[in-house]
Amino acid sequence: MSASTINLAVIPGDGIGPEVTAEALKVLEKVVAAEGVTLEQTHYKLGAQHWLETGETLPDAVLEDLRTRDAILFGAVGAAPGDTRIPSGIIEREMLLKLRFSLDHYVNLRPSKLYGGVGSPLSNPGNIDFIVVREGTEGPYVGNGGTLRGGTRHEVATEVSLNTAHGVERVVRDAFRRANERPRKKLTLVHKHNVLVYAGHLWKRTVEAVAQEFPEVSHDYLHIDAATIFMVTDPARFDVIVTDNLFGDIITDLAAAITGGIGLAASGNINMDRTAPSMFEPVHGSAPDIAGQQKADPTAAILSAALLLEHLGYSAAAQRIEAAVVADVESRNGEVRSTSAIGDAIAAAV
Amino acid sequence: MSASTINLAVIPGDGIGPEVTAEALKVLEKVVAAEGVTLEQTHYKLGAQHWLETGETLPDAVLEDLRTRDAILFGAVGAAPGDTRIPSGIIEREMLLKLRFSLDHYVNLRPSKLYGGVGSPLSNPGNIDFIVVREGTEGPYVGNGGTLRGGTRHEVATEVSLNTAHGVERVVRDAFRRANERPRKKLTLVHKHNVLVYAGHLWKRTVEAVAQEFPEVSHDYLHIDAATIFMVTDPARFDVIVTDNLFGDIITDLAAAITGGIGLAASGNINMDRTAPSMFEPVHGSAPDIAGQQKADPTAAILSAALLLEHLGYSAAAQRIEAAVVADVESRNGEVRSTSAIGDAIAAAV
Ligand SMILES: CC(C)[C@H](C(=O)O)[C@@H](O)C(=O)O
Ligand SMILES: CC(C)[C@H](C(=O)O)[C@@H](O)C(=O)O
Repeated sequence: MSASTINLAVIPGDGIGPEVTAEALKVLEKVVAAEGVTLEQTHYKLGAQHWLETGETLPDAVLEDLRTRDAILFGAVGAAPGDTRIPSGIIEREMLLKLRFSLDHYVNLRPSKLYGGVGSPLSNPGNIDFIVVREGTEGPYVGNGGTLRGGTRHEVATEVSLNTAHGVERVVRDAFRRANERPRKKLTLVHKHNVLVYAGHLWKRTVEAVAQEFPEVSHDYLHIDAATIFMVTDPARFDVIVTDNLFGDIITDLAAAITGGIGLAASGNINMDRTAPSMFEPVHGSAPDIAGQQKADPTAAILSAALLLEHLGYSAAAQRIEAAVVADVESRNGEVRSTSAIGDAIAAAV
Repeated sequence: MSASTINLAVIPGDGIGPEVTAEALKVLEKVVAAEGVTLEQTHYKLGAQHWLETGETLPDAVLEDLRTRDAILFGAVGAAPGDTRIPSGIIEREMLLKLRFSLDHYVNLRPSKLYGGVGSPLSNPGNIDFIVVREGTEGPYVGNGGTLRGGTRHEVATEVSLNTAHGVERVVRDAFRRANERPRKKLTLVHKHNVLVYAGHLWKRTVEAVAQEFPEVSHDYLHIDAATIFMVTDPARFDVIVTDNLFGDIITDLAAAITGGIGLAASGNINMDRTAPSMFEPVHGSAPDIAGQQKADPTAAILSAALLLEHLGYSAAAQRIEAAVVADVESRNGEVRSTSAIGDAIAAAV
């Protein structure tokens, strides 16, 4: 990557993916131009629709090509729920999760902030401003399970959660680093170590050990069940949450819901060692029911583009996007605008 | 069990367990006396305190003795979080979970109802009235995991989720039966089958198959992450949720939070085949921080006693307890009363 060129891979995907990605690109192009940076884009056709046309999920050649890019902007993938032509979950696993695993996106970063002017389903949300550092390459997501005597009365189905010292330590250290840079400097480990003893204790021991390197960061622990309670009774208690792949999946959807919905929730799938490009995507899915109607909120995609710039070192540009989003969101007042109208407004403001 | 005697096992446990159990017994004694039923009680000392004194979690002889009872009323167990003398989670696993597994409590029943007069953290909760049927004897709770190269940089920790056709089918059928008896007749399967393929598909296929037996019950599916969103944006959409042991643990704490807190959430660990006694317990824990101060809300324990009566066939008595609780809760107005004052008021009203 040259300092003045971003070699960007774009995977718009399915459903509302292309629409929201178009707005993210609109904003991205505007803000990087102002910085004198060239944005080179390579678009990739991948997703459920592509699978229907070609039978391809993520060919090796495409994966290798993606590796040559500086970063990936990702829209959303997934078939319509009623579409029985597509084996359920195949796009998610063989495309989205394959990208996260192959490109070693071990930090799945999901910030949660209740922006001014945004309604929360909580009557007393308080000042919600935390980030979730979700592990992205291990845990129950590894696909190590099986079926014995499938379809019979004696079927046994297993799912194996794999957790390694290597995998847990690097994400825990990343979370501590992020906590150390935030004013409150507070880290909460979320797990279920009273039941998932082996994985849970690896996580707990690792947090205790890495904490020694960050004397200014305080840390506590919550079981995942208790964490969901605090999410609705006192979400302002959270600063940095670190957790495994599955608990992170659950808690970040809940976090998105209490901060105004997944239309606003951005995420980064980050390889902090920079051995492969990181990928930025809204937390929401492809929402086939509203696709192609300019009804989707592109804010989450736009904020994901800001995370992308931040990761590539363009902090000022990232902050300009976030500021433009904050201003736009504050002025919304429940007004209904088209996907592109929101993108236009934010692009105009950056 | 003779029709006119209930041979009850009581496990008050730790922390606030004994206090809330005392109130549940107060109400139970009153209501069964009115039905002409004799309540025989056998109290068992078990829990963290008992472990400190004796090193025992759940001796085989005690387990066998418990098997001879009609039902178990359980308070709460667990050491104070700071108490490092007790290996973390040992009481939960070797006592509470051992009871659920040994006594084949495959239906972990957790009703969620927003009672009149009770505050919800949601600004617009709507009419929340659903039950969660959580599988109680399988899934990631089976304790089948391990640690390789523990404590080294090469540690690998695994957790295995075990799911059987036998285990899934019986709990799914129970959930359909319950849905069939409710006015809305709607069942929602909560899982994560796009990632946990093997277990998820067993659950999905089983729901499809058992649905054939209940033509009047409609059913849908939500991923666990999406389910947490609906819990805070539209909880009134739920009627009967059926889900696995871990997802059920998570979703029921969240459900308790949105319906006014775990001070009100009751649960039954039920063996529907009646090959062993079922166990009834508040969803809350032992809350060592407020133990012995008469600050705990015994309502969840009292409602658990109502579930116990319902299970033993004393429906009228169970309904009298629920009605008394509803009336009491409606009159609370945020008033602070002692544990025993709440118990007295409800006992007086049954
Ligand atoms: C689509 C699905 C595989 C994915 C996940 O479970 O990680 C999604 O829910 C997310 O949170 O990004
Ligand atoms: C104490 C713990 C083992 C238990 C569980 O995880 O089932 C509790 O959280 C519950 O929900 O009853």
